[in-house]
Amino acid sequence: MYSSRGQLSGSKVFKDPVHRYIYVYDHLIWELINTKEFQRLRRIKQLGTSFLTFHGAEHTRFHHSLGVYEIARQLIDQFQQYPEWDDRDRELLLAAALLHDVGHGPFSHAFEHVFSVRHEVWTERIILGDTEVNKVLSEMGVGFAEEVASIINKTHPNRLIVNILSSQLDVDRMDYLLRDAHFAGVSYGKFDLERMLRVLRPDEDQVVVKQSGMHTIEDYIMRRYQMYWQVYLHPATRSSDLLLKAILERAQELYESGYAFNLTPKHFLPIFEQKVMTLEQYLKLDETVVYFYFQEWMDEEDSILADLSSRFVNRRLLKYKNFPEANRDRHMERLRQTMETIGLPSKYYLLEDQLSQLPYDLYKGQGKYEGIYLQMNDGERKEISEVSMLVQSILNSRQSDEKIYYPEDVLLNLKDYANEKSWILSTLKDE
Amino acid sequence: MYSSRGQLSGSKVFKDPVHRYIYVYDHLIWELINTKEFQRLRRIKQLGTSFLTFHGAEHTRFHHSLGVYEIARQLIDQFQQYPEWDDRDRELLLAAALLHDVGHGPFSHAFEHVFSVRHEVWTERIILGDTEVNKVLSEMGVGFAEEVASIINKTHPNRLIVNILSSQLDVDRMDYLLRDAHFAGVSYGKFDLERMLRVLRPDEDQVVVKQSGMHTIEDYIMRRYQMYWQVYLHPATRSSDLLLKAILERAQELYESGYAFNLTPKHFLPIFEQKVMTLEQYLKLDETVVYFYFQEWMDEEDSILADLSSRFVNRRLLKYKNFPEANRDRHMERLRQTMETIGLPSKYYLLEDQLSQLPYDLYKGQGKYEGIYLQMNDGERKEISEVSMLVQSILNSRQSDEKIYYPEDVLLNLKDYANEKSWILSTLKDE
Amino acid sequence: MYSSRGQLSGSKVFKDPVHRYIYVYDHLIWELINTKEFQRLRRIKQLGTSFLTFHGAEHTRFHHSLGVYEIARQLIDQFQQYPEWDDRDRELLLAAALLHDVGHGPFSHAFEHVFSVRHEVWTERIILGDTEVNKVLSEMGVGFAEEVASIINKTHPNRLIVNILSSQLDVDRMDYLLRDAHFAGVSYGKFDLERMLRVLRPDEDQVVVKQSGMHTIEDYIMRRYQMYWQVYLHPATRSSDLLLKAILERAQELYESGYAFNLTPKHFLPIFEQKVMTLEQYLKLDETVVYFYFQEWMDEEDSILADLSSRFVNRRLLKYKNFPEANRDRHMERLRQTMETIGLPSKYYLLEDQLSQLPYDLYKGQGKYEGIYLQMNDGERKEISEVSMLVQSILNSRQSDEKIYYPEDVLLNLKDYANEKSWILSTLKDE
Amino acid sequence: MYSSRGQLSGSKVFKDPVHRYIYVYDHLIWELINTKEFQRLRRIKQLGTSFLTFHGAEHTRFHHSLGVYEIARQLIDQFQQYPEWDDRDRELLLAAALLHDVGHGPFSHAFEHVFSVRHEVWTERIILGDTEVNKVLSEMGVGFAEEVASIINKTHPNRLIVNILSSQLDVDRMDYLLRDAHFAGVSYGKFDLERMLRVLRPDEDQVVVKQSGMHTIEDYIMRRYQMYWQVYLHPATRSSDLLLKAILERAQELYESGYAFNLTPKHFLPIFEQKVMTLEQYLKLDETVVYFYFQEWMDEEDSILADLSSRFVNRRLLKYKNFPEANRDRHMERLRQTMETIGLPSKYYLLEDQLSQLPYDLYKGQGKYEGIYLQMNDGERKEISEVSMLVQSILNSRQSDEKIYYPEDVLLNLKDYANEKSWILSTLKDE
Repeated sequence: MYSSRGQLSGSKVFKDPVHRYIYVYDHLIWELINTKEFQRLRRIKQLGTSFLTFHGAEHTRFHHSLGVYEIARQLIDQFQQYPEWDDRDRELLLAAALLHDVGHGPFSHAFEHVFSVRHEVWTERIILGDTEVNKVLSEMGVGFAEEVASIINKTHPNRLIVNILSSQLDVDRMDYLLRDAHFAGVSYGKFDLERMLRVLRPDEDQVVVKQSGMHTIEDYIMRRYQMYWQVYLHPATRSSDLLLKAILERAQELYESGYAFNLTPKHFLPIFEQKVMTLEQYLKLDETVVYFYFQEWMDEEDSILADLSSRFVNRRLLKYKNFPEANRDRHMERLRQTMETIGLPSKYYLLEDQLSQLPYDLYKGQGKYEGIYLQMNDGERKEISEVSMLVQSILNSRQSDEKIYYPEDVLLNLKDYANEKSWILSTLKDE
Repeated sequence: MYSSRGQLSGSKVFKDPVHRYIYVYDHLIWELINTKEFQRLRRIKQLGTSFLTFHGAEHTRFHHSLGVYEIARQLIDQFQQYPEWDDRDRELLLAAALLHDVGHGPFSHAFEHVFSVRHEVWTERIILGDTEVNKVLSEMGVGFAEEVASIINKTHPNRLIVNILSSQLDVDRMDYLLRDAHFAGVSYGKFDLERMLRVLRPDEDQVVVKQSGMHTIEDYIMRRYQMYWQVYLHPATRSSDLLLKAILERAQELYESGYAFNLTPKHFLPIFEQKVMTLEQYLKLDETVVYFYFQEWMDEEDSILADLSSRFVNRRLLKYKNFPEANRDRHMERLRQTMETIGLPSKYYLLEDQLSQLPYDLYKGQGKYEGIYLQMNDGERKEISEVSMLVQSILNSRQSDEKIYYPEDVLLNLKDYANEKSWILSTLKDE
Repeated sequence: MYSSRGQLSGSKVFKDPVHRYIYVYDHLIWELINTKEFQRLRRIKQLGTSFLTFHGAEHTRFHHSLGVYEIARQLIDQFQQYPEWDDRDRELLLAAALLHDVGHGPFSHAFEHVFSVRHEVWTERIILGDTEVNKVLSEMGVGFAEEVASIINKTHPNRLIVNILSSQLDVDRMDYLLRDAHFAGVSYGKFDLERMLRVLRPDEDQVVVKQSGMHTIEDYIMRRYQMYWQVYLHPATRSSDLLLKAILERAQELYESGYAFNLTPKHFLPIFEQKVMTLEQYLKLDETVVYFYFQEWMDEEDSILADLSSRFVNRRLLKYKNFPEANRDRHMERLRQTMETIGLPSKYYLLEDQLSQLPYDLYKGQGKYEGIYLQMNDGERKEISEVSMLVQSILNSRQSDEKIYYPEDVLLNLKDYANEKSWILSTLKDE
Repeated sequence: MYSSRGQLSGSKVFKDPVHRYIYVYDHLIWELINTKEFQRLRRIKQLGTSFLTFHGAEHTRFHHSLGVYEIARQLIDQFQQYPEWDDRDRELLLAAALLHDVGHGPFSHAFEHVFSVRHEVWTERIILGDTEVNKVLSEMGVGFAEEVASIINKTHPNRLIVNILSSQLDVDRMDYLLRDAHFAGVSYGKFDLERMLRVLRPDEDQVVVKQSGMHTIEDYIMRRYQMYWQVYLHPATRSSDLLLKAILERAQELYESGYAFNLTPKHFLPIFEQKVMTLEQYLKLDETVVYFYFQEWMDEEDSILADLSSRFVNRRLLKYKNFPEANRDRHMERLRQTMETIGLPSKYYLLEDQLSQLPYDLYKGQGKYEGIYLQMNDGERKEISEVSMLVQSILNSRQSDEKIYYPEDVLLNLKDYANEKSWILSTLKDE
């Protein structure tokens, strides 16, 4: 039995740098925002370690989530005329938009890579488990929370609603492009949201684009392309991500070897021990906590953990180089030997990062709901890459970028090791 | 012996949302930025708890400091023709601009109020003590670090340089108005920086404004006025500040009473024990650490500390009300009694906040270097409030704002206490 | 009998630099826009001769009118709940907003000063006369056109609708502040429209402001104040306005004296002859036409008309000076004599411009509908100047600015007249 | 003998919506701006008839020219270190940047198509002929004016300077993209100028891009691509251009047939008679004059000229349709017959517009100075299309767009002609 909590007596308004104002009219949404699980997103940055490259990028998943909700709200207004849209569908979509990232942990990208944590799983647990979020959702009637979860994990039968939240043209991407651009201070991501929303149409099971909106979509895809190369995949950010992983790996290795930490890393124990983590434990593990340990670890006796942590906290990142492929292996081997000679474990200090293709979500036109469909004037639907040479060329462009990361500050300042020193100077300094 | 570290071979460029780009040309500046003491400013927000009101306001003192440096750099370009300006003065000013806030601790405003900590003192210690910052400055020659410190604490004999960094028209305020406005997402603070710099003139011992720039300055002062009322003094932010103070006071009280914390608050001990704090201890105390303890304290046995901490972390702030003066005391007393009756210590839960005048730095036209001086076409200098009725009216406007803060969630949801309940409902709900 | 033309099958969208997009949903509005009388507004600049000072200010009354319509449309959405609002009221207001300036002629301000033309009269004639506009309005039913006219001339009994279009907080001012700021390229006028609309409330017979919106209104009034001093009353613009008037006066004088123009100024004849002007004649007299004559007049034999016209077309404006009051009269007299000596008629070349008070519409808090009323939390209404010291100070500030305009290029380049020359050099060059 | 006029005692500053401020330091530039030939550019819109599609696009070649000058000025600052750059080169380039469009006539694009007028020729004549511009330039020394002209017509031996003003990355395009975007109110053209200038390098005979700037250039090219499709080639603008040409053709035809105009079109006579036009005659022919005639021609007896003129002035444009190629010829023929039947000469009312490829200047990578060259890290130069798949795809994309324009208002409102009427309704109304 669905029973809406109804509308607030007066709307609540958030000042937002991206959308200017975010409007909340529904009790449901207002109460979800005030749950502790949602407030926790204030302690998880939207772009992980990117703030070490773009200092403005301190924005959190808290406001991104509000922004996704706001765009969904505007899109629903735009799609008013959609025949079978009812109040329940509306509130389901708004709740799902707000909560789609609620399970994210600290530095999700790097964290999930090192440990076996998946934010999607935790999003579902938060929505369905013993949480304030679940309590609020449950007041909407039996099954409501489950439906919100199924919209987020894409199994809900209403394909249109699923599509609005998860597709090439979803409200999630729209918000993060605009938000990341605003906070990083770059202009590449600033597409025309108002026009974008106007060229979209609900078409049975998915959102399509009216034919005359093709150039608008091309522009949007180009902005994404630019954001990837200029912001998301910036080499300095990849360097800080590698460092973060190295710290976590070292800490786990130490723990497994029985090392005695000054301060027991109790928040990490279930992870280090690969035990089942409780919801309560997971919710405590935010970026404040991780950062706190990194600061503590700077004083650990283990010089590797201490150095890596200090590098992260004080931003002394590894530098990088693209070696020509011809002598890449040879150089790597020599660097490895040098490092071992001077006592730097290459496992933590000589890192590789291969981008052999664009990230999955830049654009991919396969799978039933994966493409972007134009509704041609004659009624036909066409995937945009069939019509737009620009989009096609982005689909076809496979750029690889293989970088080697190493502690330049150490290598360039060797006191002894005359042989290595001269080789290093000539090899790493050629720019 | 001053010996400049010289220019970088290529300039370093930071992407900045406010100034678009921040340019670093001097070795000195580049090395100062890379010290751990300066990097620490990344962990101290520019606006303290304001992000709980304006979610975008996550920006840190790190980029504010870069921004102040950048405006100083532009102003020096503008003042090129200034007769006695030399390279050393230039580097002194740039370093001072960059470092003026380096001694700030976590949530400075509230912290300094509760404990006897003054960020100005720590700024000086960091510049003159055993730090990376001092090491970099010392390489510029004997006395350089001391001069930087004296510019910041306003005792340097070159009054013009002191004035550029500390006055009604200083580069500090210019950056924070623009930056706070950008990140909070409000438009009130966005004055025209380029024009502002153009109407300024170096005039012996201070920065003055050419007569035709009067309206530009009026606009700037109005923006400040708006930022104060709309952002800095927002009642919700004052509420979160009061909560923060209450937590710190409760923790200290507990410590003094011999309470056994689950986790020894080692970072706070020198403060709690009112001992001399070492530089090393101070530098470890950033907002990450404070926030970490607040999260830990949510699980403390002491229900007051636990509740206050939980309110802060999960953003369940005290609500507020302006009682008419006539029945203010009576209402306060009744609220106090009610709280004691239901077991809420009013010391922590019934808080007052009196803004009986505008904050000191909104604008004050007294003291030799305090005013804003117009250079009239006839050569005379006049304080702007003599010429501008608008500025005068701001000087004269004394607005008081007395608010009472209390836990509305508790008071409105009393289960028993029928008497108190009805009184509360009628008194607190009348809006 | 009111009979709405109904909604367009799809909305029409204008790209607008100020509001991003302007949406037209009503047949009525779409058809009014396409009348020739409305299209004529494309040939009348919003800011008259200001483009000679701010080169970006080429925008026309055509888009200002669209913008006023758009804000009215948004305000109506905001006021949805207004009890007695019906479709007819809505269309009346939208039509009035669109047409409120339709009677403006070329360079209205200067033109109306020289000739006895009043744009308000012509607006009414266009709405009620034999025009395409009247035809479209008449299709809405008997009396509709008359009501639109009466909203514009403020005699309509629905005071709220009148107030929305004509008051201190009217949609007209809101658009022009934003638009003039955008096109002139200044930031002073850019207030937060979205917030402004949100703090307004319909209250029986007028628009009021909820108490918490006071600072928003203060900000808005300050922007107006800045726009007046920085843009609307810019001395260079006042100079070009004086020149324009001088040309028109000279042309009329010549006509009256029987001067034979190379090209008969047929468009001006009814004005020169002070005859009744037909609607058709008036509608032909746009800025293209006036500008065309000015270009023709550069080749007239009358050297005064030719010179004045050439100055306007080639932007060789009169320069200006504020003489100290003490010797103002003496200097003026001497300048007058000098001019007559060298053969420059002072009537056209020595011009005065006295701004002895702020223009009427900067802010004036008298008369029933003249002020800005706050709706206090306790229900009371208060004029904002009772509550805001800032607004009060603007009300009280009477700044006078008396300037003398003269052809500096001639006076400073005298070949003979040694006496006058040295006096002029010493008197006019002292800056 | 070059002799600089030197620097102004104080700089002159123009408020500009695009660059915020435009700074003039050189006497030369200030005096060029104040010539009547340069001021005349105020009466020629930058985007011709585009204001009929994007109402904000009222901006003129006057401020575009100032903007091109300003970017050139900034670029020179950026290129300071360029070895052989001297003051004379600097002033040559600045003057050429300012004057590059000075020969443009009214609605250049359409005008030049109908008559045998080429703005490049007139630019040269203005610079070298008996003009105020020539007088100012000549004061710089013998040969200066000729060199300015040769920079503009690309024959000057200093290839770098030529390249800065005329190439794929020239300062002309940079300004117009930003300016057209600002005034039209679209965001597509807003690339990051500051960054763009920073990735450019002077390299002997041309401007090249440092390798790391590739994505910046891709972004810039995409913005151009978007501006072409969304603004410059907008079908409504093409319709108003076709109408303009039709009017001019009809007027010429009438003149040649001896038709007696109400008002002799004296400004057009040299063109109509295909005689040599004097500089004085050319300079009088601006858009004010053309517009004036169009307004006069609305009252001509010739119904074709009157109707076409009225359509233009009152914006009753021809509508358009893309017929499928299969039945295109057939439909055209039928339309032609219909028009002749009802007395509409198809020569003026049935117009075709074939865009069979992108306009020449969208991007073309051929010819020595035609491409955009990256300076690779290894020193090599590569044309960007060799490196960027995106640019390549734009080069390869040939989109054709064939539209038919016709007076829908007439065709859809036929009173009689039952046959034609039903065919028309079914054929033109199928959307």
